[in-house]
Amino acid sequence: MKKVEHIGIAVKDFTVSIPLFEKILNTECYKNEAVESEKVNTAFFRKGETKIELLESIEADGVIAKFIEKKGEGIHHIAFEVENIEIEMQRMKSEGFILLNEIPKRGADNKLVCFLHPKGTNGVLIELCEEIK
Amino acid sequence: MKKVEHIGIAVKDFTVSIPLFEKILNTECYKNEAVESEKVNTAFFRKGETKIELLESIEADGVIAKFIEKKGEGIHHIAFEVENIEIEMQRMKSEGFILLNEIPKRGADNKLVCFLHPKGTNGVLIELCEEIK
Repeated sequence: MKKVEHIGIAVKDFTVSIPLFEKILNTECYKNEAVESEKVNTAFFRKGETKIELLESIEADGVIAKFIEKKGEGIHHIAFEVENIEIEMQRMKSEGFILLNEIPKRGADNKLVCFLHPKGTNGVLIELCEEIK
Repeated sequence: MKKVEHIGIAVKDFTVSIPLFEKILNTECYKNEAVESEKVNTAFFRKGETKIELLESIEADGVIAKFIEKKGEGIHHIAFEVENIEIEMQRMKSEGFILLNEIPKRGADNKLVCFLHPKGTNGVLIELCEEIK
């Protein structure tokens, strides 16, 4: 694990939240991307070596819509950049952590990603991500 | 705002969570510090330019104990490093954000800190922090 690649924040409505986070972070949103497989729109901001990723549900039954229904808007996950996702997934498994996907899947922002089950990580949803070369 | 200085995570018990995060992050906890005014113990880990700060309540009625009672263990706040906290607090106020403390207060890890009310920030508790020179 090299660094905090991004922090994911679940929001209801980009038309409200993108300008809001532009104000908070004092920087412009530089990228929007839909991830159809996850039923989310994403919006990115940079702060130092870390990104803030806003997540808006595309569909009423999407994972982000369900998260907001249960917990309200707020921080959804922390993503750590790794050199080699398969080696890191193997390390996590050998330490007893539960992977939410056994095969790396395609995420936003040109990444291969894997999530760890938050029951094993003090309630923190952790994403491992590797830049696709 | 320069970078994500740290991510704060509320946990019940350091004897469980420090070894757990040492495994997850694959790095050792390098600092423990109590912040009596906030009734918390803190434990720090480094990943790139960002720190992970575990927060454990010292008292049953502390702010972290109450957070866990309401929401469970998990991500508590994001802290952004700023050059000059008073200028940044003034900027936030002029943008309409509500400050939880009007005067910078002493936080862990040699910092002056100010929190923004999460009602104005999509449910995200945001800390501004300036290193004390």
